[in-house]
Amino acid sequence: MDSKHGDTSGDLALDRLVFFSDAVFAIAITLLVLDIHVPNLPHVVSIEDSWRAFAELTPSFFAFALSFLVIGRFWMGHHERFRSLRHFDARLMWPNMIYLLAIAFMPFATAFLGQNLGHFVPELVYNLSMLVLALVAFWLAWVVRVVGGDRTRPYDGIDLILAALVCIALTFWQPLLSQWGMMTIPLWTWLENRLYSRRGMGAVG
Amino acid sequence: MDSKHGDTSGDLALDRLVFFSDAVFAIAITLLVLDIHVPNLPHVVSIEDSWRAFAELTPSFFAFALSFLVIGRFWMGHHERFRSLRHFDARLMWPNMIYLLAIAFMPFATAFLGQNLGHFVPELVYNLSMLVLALVAFWLAWVVRVVGGDRTRPYDGIDLILAALVCIALTFWQPLLSQWGMMTIPLWTWLENRLYSRRGMGAVG
Amino acid sequence: MDSKHGDTSGDLALDRLVFFSDAVFAIAITLLVLDIHVPNLPHVVSIEDSWRAFAELTPSFFAFALSFLVIGRFWMGHHERFRSLRHFDARLMWPNMIYLLAIAFMPFATAFLGQNLGHFVPELVYNLSMLVLALVAFWLAWVVRVVGGDRTRPYDGIDLILAALVCIALTFWQPLLSQWGMMTIPLWTWLENRLYSRRGMGAVG
Amino acid sequence: MDSKHGDTSGDLALDRLVFFSDAVFAIAITLLVLDIHVPNLPHVVSIEDSWRAFAELTPSFFAFALSFLVIGRFWMGHHERFRSLRHFDARLMWPNMIYLLAIAFMPFATAFLGQNLGHFVPELVYNLSMLVLALVAFWLAWVVRVVGGDRTRPYDGIDLILAALVCIALTFWQPLLSQWGMMTIPLWTWLENRLYSRRGMGAVG
Repeated sequence: MDSKHGDTSGDLALDRLVFFSDAVFAIAITLLVLDIHVPNLPHVVSIEDSWRAFAELTPSFFAFALSFLVIGRFWMGHHERFRSLRHFDARLMWPNMIYLLAIAFMPFATAFLGQNLGHFVPELVYNLSMLVLALVAFWLAWVVRVVGGDRTRPYDGIDLILAALVCIALTFWQPLLSQWGMMTIPLWTWLENRLYSRRGMGAVG
Repeated sequence: MDSKHGDTSGDLALDRLVFFSDAVFAIAITLLVLDIHVPNLPHVVSIEDSWRAFAELTPSFFAFALSFLVIGRFWMGHHERFRSLRHFDARLMWPNMIYLLAIAFMPFATAFLGQNLGHFVPELVYNLSMLVLALVAFWLAWVVRVVGGDRTRPYDGIDLILAALVCIALTFWQPLLSQWGMMTIPLWTWLENRLYSRRGMGAVG
Repeated sequence: MDSKHGDTSGDLALDRLVFFSDAVFAIAITLLVLDIHVPNLPHVVSIEDSWRAFAELTPSFFAFALSFLVIGRFWMGHHERFRSLRHFDARLMWPNMIYLLAIAFMPFATAFLGQNLGHFVPELVYNLSMLVLALVAFWLAWVVRVVGGDRTRPYDGIDLILAALVCIALTFWQPLLSQWGMMTIPLWTWLENRLYSRRGMGAVG
Repeated sequence: MDSKHGDTSGDLALDRLVFFSDAVFAIAITLLVLDIHVPNLPHVVSIEDSWRAFAELTPSFFAFALSFLVIGRFWMGHHERFRSLRHFDARLMWPNMIYLLAIAFMPFATAFLGQNLGHFVPELVYNLSMLVLALVAFWLAWVVRVVGGDRTRPYDGIDLILAALVCIALTFWQPLLSQWGMMTIPLWTWLENRLYSRRGMGAVG
């Protein structure tokens, strides 16, 4: 009974870590909208001018939707990884905190991109942020696997690292199009799964 | 015992999805207030001028209260729908994320409306945002029903779609009054319930 | 077993309502800090001038701390009230949402106050906001009691209403000092508890 | 059975307190990024000028990362302390709320520091904020121990107080370097643990 109590306590500690992480994800993903600056139309304005003011926000809309999906995708990875855990372990604390630091930085990278879409520096900063995020996520997944005594799926998260590298490479060719490198994620995920199945480690659909 | 463990794990995964969604709803609904810009009164100012400065915020107050109730109503629908679920299913992930994207966009639509109340473009953008939200909510409800093996209440959420369409139609006639189309929600909900009861699918009060 | 499942489902639905409310409280209370505008000091500045720039923020600091404690106090009331509930009831939904609307409005009232401390209109708006909040909290507590079949402590929350009324009365005499009316809360709580104990309804310490 | 029900209720009340605190921590830590102001580059700009505009944000980046790790460290302490608790106790309410007030103030101290790095006043304000935070955390840990009937580890949190004092002392010598005083935390933690082990109160690794 004592050990069961211990377990319960361990689970609550894990719950707290997980819900704290979820809250940071949720705030970072929702703060993105604050970077779309509302145009204040003059009192008398033609409908054409209104649409034009609205259309000028297109880069901000693009950056908002892009980062929403990117952070959303990383959240799903975090969700997937932590599902396998049963108990809290203090070794998770700092890697998870550094990971959240990278997540919390994304609204800045997004705003910098949205207000200067197509410029080399903001595009590179954005793509480097994604690379750092993917690397830290890979490290965290590693720690989660060690803590949980899990030997399966050691390459989890390599798909996101490779996609970020494609984006960085594209920045030097066409900054404006570089984020479309994220579209290669399914390809890398498929390769990851092939690697697992060849080695008999069980792919995930 | 193993399967029971599996269940528990499934429930925690569902909990995380639900609490993450709640956090995004809560942040979006609370961020709305940031769009009411505080008037900085001069050091010496008459009470009449103070009230006037305050009264100029009326459109922002209206947009704040409106969007609070709209997002609140959608949250209740999300709450109602997910109550029927017992287990996590990965198929919920992306539809729910797209739904949250539409929710997270509302603070922008609200600020655009509040600062330009009565203008055709912001009014139309706001009403279209509500329509997109209602359509995505309908899609998500569909996925939840498929995942949960639930055959009841297939038209859930059509009331919100119809109300958004009324708002859009009203925009072309009187932009300033268009959002009052949301007042028709009870009518459509009543019709929805009649449809269910006629087909013996059980209405909800 | 079926009914037990039903209970569990009811509790999860209540959990969601409660955690959603907590999130709105937490966001509203933390957003308050955004209204303290950071002074950007010139590159070369004397220490005296730095302190002066800092000291000019005093009204904002006061408004921040005041609203933090006010919202914190209301959160404790919400926490206390909902502890008695065992099951979710859809009748809680709208009163709770209106209550959260009043909470979410507080950052605006706080910013308006902090930037114009001592002015009649912002002071009155702030104190009226507290009154509305106290009234809605009283209504919600009523609904919680009805839903939970609880007959005890029917005057819960009257202490906050009376304190808000004191603040409003003080506004007409000395706007700058009006919020100190909140200091009368312990008095009203003590009277509330005396009323309960006289009628044998059990006071709380 | 009745008492078991009571326990469950107590745990839910504790859960709410803990998750509310987590939400405030999560919001404060994520809001930090809003203080990094995005440079809006001119339409035609050289890559060198872009990098220069980006590099000017270095103080803001430093303040962001610093405060993220500081708040993160305090969250871990809160997590560690509350793990030992089994039941809710109303005596936790106000100390925890005051603690959250100190946490919620950090985004202001961070923004003030980031925009005026190296100035005596913002540096001192920041370091004093950390000291207040450490003192309130110590007080809260004390209350948690009293409530939980826990006699172990009475000096918990002294390490953070000492580190904040080092930062304050450094401010009078070299404001710009003062926060590096946080680097002494491991030293004080090690001393704390030696104190425990000498008195047989069990150190934590």
